[in-house]
Amino acid sequence: MASDTSEAASSTADLKLQFAPFSSALEAGFWHQLTQKKLNDYRLDESPKSIKGYYYNGDPLGLPTRLTLEFSAFEVDGPTPARCCPAVGTLYNTNTLDAFKTTDKKALLEKEAKEIWDTIQSGEALKDPSILCRFLLLTFADLKKYHFYYWFCFPALCFPEGIKIVQQPSVLEQVFSAKQIAALQEAYDGLCIKRETTAVPYFLMKYTDDTVHMAPLGDWDTFFTDTKKVTVGVYDPCTLSQHPALLLCVCVCVIMWTLFQKRHIAYFTLLMCFFTACPKSVGWEKNPKGAMGPRMVNLSECMDPKRLAESSVDLNLKLMRWRLVPSLDLDKVVSTKCLLLGAGTLGCNVARTLMGWGVRHITFVDNAKISYSNPVRQPLYEFEDCLGGGKAKAMAAVDRLTKIFPGVNAEGYNMSIPMPGHPVNFSQATLSQAQRDVEQLEKLISKHDVVFLLMDTRESRWLPTVIAASKRKLVVNAALGFDTFVVMRHGLKKPPVSQTGSAPSVPGSSLFSNIPGHKLGCYFCNDVVAPGDSTRDRTLDQQCTVSRPGLAMIAGALAVEMMVSILQHSEGGYAVASSSDDRMNEPPTSLGLVPHQIRGFLSRFDNVLPASLAFDKCTACSPIVLDNYEREGFNFLSKVFNSSHSFLEDLTGLTLLHQETQAAELSSWRLWRKTHRG
Amino acid sequence: MASDTSEAASSTADLKLQFAPFSSALEAGFWHQLTQKKLNDYRLDESPKSIKGYYYNGDPLGLPTRLTLEFSAFEVDGPTPARCCPAVGTLYNTNTLDAFKTTDKKALLEKEAKEIWDTIQSGEALKDPSILCRFLLLTFADLKKYHFYYWFCFPALCFPEGIKIVQQPSVLEQVFSAKQIAALQEAYDGLCIKRETTAVPYFLMKYTDDTVHMAPLGDWDTFFTDTKKVTVGVYDPCTLSQHPALLLCVCVCVIMWTLFQKRHIAYFTLLMCFFTACPKSVGWEKNPKGAMGPRMVNLSECMDPKRLAESSVDLNLKLMRWRLVPSLDLDKVVSTKCLLLGAGTLGCNVARTLMGWGVRHITFVDNAKISYSNPVRQPLYEFEDCLGGGKAKAMAAVDRLTKIFPGVNAEGYNMSIPMPGHPVNFSQATLSQAQRDVEQLEKLISKHDVVFLLMDTRESRWLPTVIAASKRKLVVNAALGFDTFVVMRHGLKKPPVSQTGSAPSVPGSSLFSNIPGHKLGCYFCNDVVAPGDSTRDRTLDQQCTVSRPGLAMIAGALAVEMMVSILQHSEGGYAVASSSDDRMNEPPTSLGLVPHQIRGFLSRFDNVLPASLAFDKCTACSPIVLDNYEREGFNFLSKVFNSSHSFLEDLTGLTLLHQETQAAELSSWRLWRKTHRG
Repeated sequence: MASDTSEAASSTADLKLQFAPFSSALEAGFWHQLTQKKLNDYRLDESPKSIKGYYYNGDPLGLPTRLTLEFSAFEVDGPTPARCCPAVGTLYNTNTLDAFKTTDKKALLEKEAKEIWDTIQSGEALKDPSILCRFLLLTFADLKKYHFYYWFCFPALCFPEGIKIVQQPSVLEQVFSAKQIAALQEAYDGLCIKRETTAVPYFLMKYTDDTVHMAPLGDWDTFFTDTKKVTVGVYDPCTLSQHPALLLCVCVCVIMWTLFQKRHIAYFTLLMCFFTACPKSVGWEKNPKGAMGPRMVNLSECMDPKRLAESSVDLNLKLMRWRLVPSLDLDKVVSTKCLLLGAGTLGCNVARTLMGWGVRHITFVDNAKISYSNPVRQPLYEFEDCLGGGKAKAMAAVDRLTKIFPGVNAEGYNMSIPMPGHPVNFSQATLSQAQRDVEQLEKLISKHDVVFLLMDTRESRWLPTVIAASKRKLVVNAALGFDTFVVMRHGLKKPPVSQTGSAPSVPGSSLFSNIPGHKLGCYFCNDVVAPGDSTRDRTLDQQCTVSRPGLAMIAGALAVEMMVSILQHSEGGYAVASSSDDRMNEPPTSLGLVPHQIRGFLSRFDNVLPASLAFDKCTACSPIVLDNYEREGFNFLSKVFNSSHSFLEDLTGLTLLHQETQAAELSSWRLWRKTHRG
Repeated sequence: MASDTSEAASSTADLKLQFAPFSSALEAGFWHQLTQKKLNDYRLDESPKSIKGYYYNGDPLGLPTRLTLEFSAFEVDGPTPARCCPAVGTLYNTNTLDAFKTTDKKALLEKEAKEIWDTIQSGEALKDPSILCRFLLLTFADLKKYHFYYWFCFPALCFPEGIKIVQQPSVLEQVFSAKQIAALQEAYDGLCIKRETTAVPYFLMKYTDDTVHMAPLGDWDTFFTDTKKVTVGVYDPCTLSQHPALLLCVCVCVIMWTLFQKRHIAYFTLLMCFFTACPKSVGWEKNPKGAMGPRMVNLSECMDPKRLAESSVDLNLKLMRWRLVPSLDLDKVVSTKCLLLGAGTLGCNVARTLMGWGVRHITFVDNAKISYSNPVRQPLYEFEDCLGGGKAKAMAAVDRLTKIFPGVNAEGYNMSIPMPGHPVNFSQATLSQAQRDVEQLEKLISKHDVVFLLMDTRESRWLPTVIAASKRKLVVNAALGFDTFVVMRHGLKKPPVSQTGSAPSVPGSSLFSNIPGHKLGCYFCNDVVAPGDSTRDRTLDQQCTVSRPGLAMIAGALAVEMMVSILQHSEGGYAVASSSDDRMNEPPTSLGLVPHQIRGFLSRFDNVLPASLAFDKCTACSPIVLDNYEREGFNFLSKVFNSSHSFLEDLTGLTLLHQETQAAELSSWRLWRKTHRG
């Protein structure tokens, strides 16, 4: 358990003192954690970092003398494994391979040696000799490939050369009796408990045939009343019987030299020289070929692929924060639960972009099956998915996300969304089904943070618009024409308490600028007719929502980027809408503008950013619709599904508006006639 | 072979005359071809179309009397299968299921009956009685689901009811001897040959015990010298021994009535009434349940899935032409051979958009392997592709395209592109490899129509820029920043003949507008330093080309849409560059503008369309660089790879320019000093 130092100097032997160097033992867990630290904390910071390793003296003979760094290495104040001795280290993690290669290793070593020397000189090492077990670790982590370059250094102050061993080293059993060894063990354990540590690296020792007493180095004066025979113990991890561990022994000798003040000290009865200044130092570890050089470990294969995938996916995101957008709140994005209504061209592209942003919780709702024309435009499906009548899109989309990134938490619902003008009252069965669909949709919207409307008809957006408005969920809506698109956020109503059902008033000075989020319109606010069955009697080109193939990718990507911008705004969905005019102003978030709508024109490669107020007669988000929905629930909804346009138009006052408009047109025409007759 | 009409009227039997209706037999090939016709020719045209069916009288007993329509049905003038009799028909293909259902079938039938009546009245039917075998086909093809709705009609003029058969119908063998039958066969074949047809539907016949003579109906007067016994033959497909085929027999009776002018005619010795006007007609086919109603055939499963996929993919594209962009030249897009240099984030998104546009020929070049962070941003890869060190991107991309659409013609090259400032002269081996890489790249660029530059470094774009400029290939270049991108087409040099190496002159009235394609700059034209090693000593965030996840989707989509717009322009890559100002003008193509560059700013959701002239000192596309490349080939290139910036800068005169600029700055500073001193 302990190398013994003996005072008695025998005159024999020409043995030179040699030390076994430490071998670095870096566990995969260390590299995992380094990866995390680099991504989350260090980023581009190259300044030295404190880390902690440990060594153990119970290894079987023949193993190298290991200094182990594992997962816990970055918790300097954390626990050390039982019966292991901690070693403090300094990590130099470079940002580039070039920096790694060109680091001045000599200077680093000298600096470290100087510090060891200083802690000895100051007496600090005497109080806590574990700080003498120091090491350096120079690293470059290629996190793209999971290649880790590293070079270990165990700085050791150099003895003068040619120190001779005056007494053959011997193993414990040759020097001590079994009784003494047991006593020694007990004394050491006692010392550890007293010092509240897992292992004491150096200690003082007195022993008789029956007893062993131990004390920390700092207790020299009180412990040794008689200095004729002093024994200094070293917790020596070296598994070689002939040699002590380099680093530790050199340190302890230097300490003892300090302790004894220029008196000659016997350690293995060796001759000590006088140290008048910091001695030379060595310590950079040789590589496995025995040459001075760094080592590289390729963990791309041995790391758990799924964990690798997860940390890799985080990497690109976190990189954004390191230099480009330090204020980016990634957690807010990553933890957002997204409900995608529609798993077609838009749904697939939105899901892909969400994955790129690291969003983990993605739920699809769709009732369609994958047809042969889908895979080339809907990037979650393949030819195989079309066979046998086609898989359900919502389910296949989930399968694909999992294949892309196993860490995703995706769900699919193969269900229909009831729509205005699509009656559900054919039978009790259809009515019950519609009710179940509504309940399911309500549940889903409640459980998510953002609702994406990505369907291919106008009327299928009505129900989720109403539910999400009622539940105050952020809605991002995308719709495609042939070469135009709209991506918009719905106005996010104020929480129900403050919502008194009054019509939105005109804010500030202008109708179309500085509109706060709660006064913004929804997809239906610009319409003066209620949604109805738009698929009936559509020709093929209308059914397909024919569009230029690039359009859905652009709109899908923008829908997600808009969501992220909204999430980064301190007011979220209540943020004032940015407009095209704001392009010249200071953006409200670190990612830029937070518009109400992005209307894109692919033929002109142009986007405009209109903003518009909620309409108090809107067939979807007006107070009277929400009020009816909240009071009557499915009863109200089924009336809408089963009725023609006029039901919603009567309810919201659109019918009256139409009549008034006609009347106004008539009277202005009469006025015109009167004016022009005279 | 022929139903016999006998003059002799026997007085027996109370049998009523009944006719077997035709059954429609529509082969899958017919629906395939209808799909093609709908997509390519008819589109939204609902007007009646001529089609052709055929029937056969050799079917075994018990089969229904079939009128077959197959692949050839749309070639009205095409051949008829041997021994089959053609039938002319009219196809009414509706655009919607609703239109199909609400079509006035009674009116269609009456119209058709009227036409039969008219051809009889006019004598036209006498000359070519095959025009009496008419049919109607009302269809609706749901090409999204491959459901085909159809309703067949075999218009037949109605006899007065209750016509009695005066002589039991009998089979050929009961009436004719074997010798007569052989003679009959011979006579019929002779008639067919004489008429140059596969089958004659009706014919006149005279026979003795040994001979049979036949003639077409129109030959009545010359053929029958004695009208005491006349026999009219019908090529009857009916497999029932008791009943003739409805359509044919009625027709022939009517014809004969016409022929004989108000004389009583015996057909099966039946009593004819006088027809003074077009009689009533029947003919809409019953569905398999025996009810009057349409039939539906679902071919989504029985059609060859790969062919289905191909025609489905074409569908969405062709739909664009039907209503939205009739002038769209899809073939030009679909047949374009695209070379994608880079199969990363941009490469994957470009490939996906090209697939959406129906482009079949896609080749990838990349030397990277798929890493764990790729799949969430590079939409051709999945988690599985990262295992075991990662598949080669170029190869995996090809596999994925094939999985998406088996009809694609994709190839992958796992190779490096030599770069300026990345020396290749370490050894003969590296030099030879570089030479092979250059040759391969030259070959690839020659074989393709459009070269996409989608790499993540600036210098890797140099070599393909030079080669493509020299070979006059259209180059589309996309590059990403964090939230900005540029998508641009390189100027397309005039063909070598007219290329005299002179510097581009300023066209028209302005520096930055109305620049024709051959005077536009390339990616390097705006730079005043030559490309060099930009990856050396990049930190992780620089290596990753960190960008907002939506950016690559947008830029990739726009790169392809820009290519398509260029291809639609009559001058292709030579088209004058559209600029932001042109957004208000009439666009130069049916798809819109053809800009030089699209520079996008995601934080502002904005795009601008700058255009710039080629730079006569450009390190990539200037005449001197192209001239050196064309004269010296790899010898010149290797100098560029192995040299520092200065080689290209010296060559192009950039060095001189820098000196001049400095001198100019100096002299203007001196001038300033002079001015301000006095």
